[in-house]
Amino acid sequence: MEKGDSTAINITSESSKERKGKAPLLAAPVMVATANTREDRGNKRGIAIFDFVLRLCAMVAALAAAITMGTTDQTLPFFTQFFRFQASYDDLPTFTFFVIANAITSSYLVLSIPFSIVSIVRPHTVGPRLLLIILDTVMVALSTAAAASAAAIVYLAHKGNSSANWLAICQQYNDFCQRTSGAVVASFIAVVIFVFLVILSALALRKS
Amino acid sequence: MEKGDSTAINITSESSKERKGKAPLLAAPVMVATANTREDRGNKRGIAIFDFVLRLCAMVAALAAAITMGTTDQTLPFFTQFFRFQASYDDLPTFTFFVIANAITSSYLVLSIPFSIVSIVRPHTVGPRLLLIILDTVMVALSTAAAASAAAIVYLAHKGNSSANWLAICQQYNDFCQRTSGAVVASFIAVVIFVFLVILSALALRKS
Repeated sequence: MEKGDSTAINITSESSKERKGKAPLLAAPVMVATANTREDRGNKRGIAIFDFVLRLCAMVAALAAAITMGTTDQTLPFFTQFFRFQASYDDLPTFTFFVIANAITSSYLVLSIPFSIVSIVRPHTVGPRLLLIILDTVMVALSTAAAASAAAIVYLAHKGNSSANWLAICQQYNDFCQRTSGAVVASFIAVVIFVFLVILSALALRKS
Repeated sequence: MEKGDSTAINITSESSKERKGKAPLLAAPVMVATANTREDRGNKRGIAIFDFVLRLCAMVAALAAAITMGTTDQTLPFFTQFFRFQASYDDLPTFTFFVIANAITSSYLVLSIPFSIVSIVRPHTVGPRLLLIILDTVMVALSTAAAASAAAIVYLAHKGNSSANWLAICQQYNDFCQRTSGAVVASFIAVVIFVFLVILSALALRKS
């Protein structure tokens, strides 16, 4: 006996009252839809867990960048009567912006973790995921701006520029340059993770 | 007579062969779904058209940024026997990167227009929209990096930095500084439009 037959028999054997309702008539398609949904839910939960892990990694990278840059301070071992040779991150406005932007990024990531957890628990809720993808995109722009502007200054500190008569300062402030370069690298790692977070959210939003 | 009744009667009056098929049993729910889909399709088409217009605006902004920066070249009206005082965008590696990145961005936008048109014609096709959101996110990062690094250098050219002993060059090269500042502003406009494009695509992907 085919499955189609048994369904037809079930319907005709139902009472008149039940026949009026739509639910029993839809039984077979609904079961198919539920199976699809269950598989889909598994995929979405996987993406949400990966999103959560990436978010923690990005937080560590952004925090490392902010702390490394924020604690950079080098005093040269020689000085004149009037002047101590000292390089600190707040001598350059770009590095101050870098520290602030990375601090904002890591705070945002801490605040976004509850929404990420909601996405794991309820993989089909669209609201938190949509909020996260919008704010993540803005954060891609913010953290890239911080990383790129600091990279431009670090490059200048390493190489100098003969046309503009800007001398390389890394011969004197070697330690300072190394720390700032490290902070820029950490910040670029955070940017790459953010781009992946947006792409993951887009994949998860595809069918919800 | 209720609608449920008529549906029931229709089903019972069908031939045995037709009763086996699932399509007639689903008639009513499918109609409801079609009505929802039609409204949804209108929304999606509106978003797709807005996406197309924004894409054109971003292309103009990125192209203007690349051309403004690429044609910046100032020669001062005085010179020595051995040296002509000239400032060009390719004296600074950051500005060269800026021109290349903005050229890539505007080329990408030209190439993305067919996909945007496909999204207008077929609002429910997920493929092109997913491709666009992924590439748009990467382009947010690229164009922000270009804009921010050039902004850091332009700021330095305007203000100089006493700690690093880098002098402001805008007193001499006034015209050069104004043009590069304009290019940076145009590039930031492109970045803002890109962020909106990603958010629009996310809204359109929400239910498809």
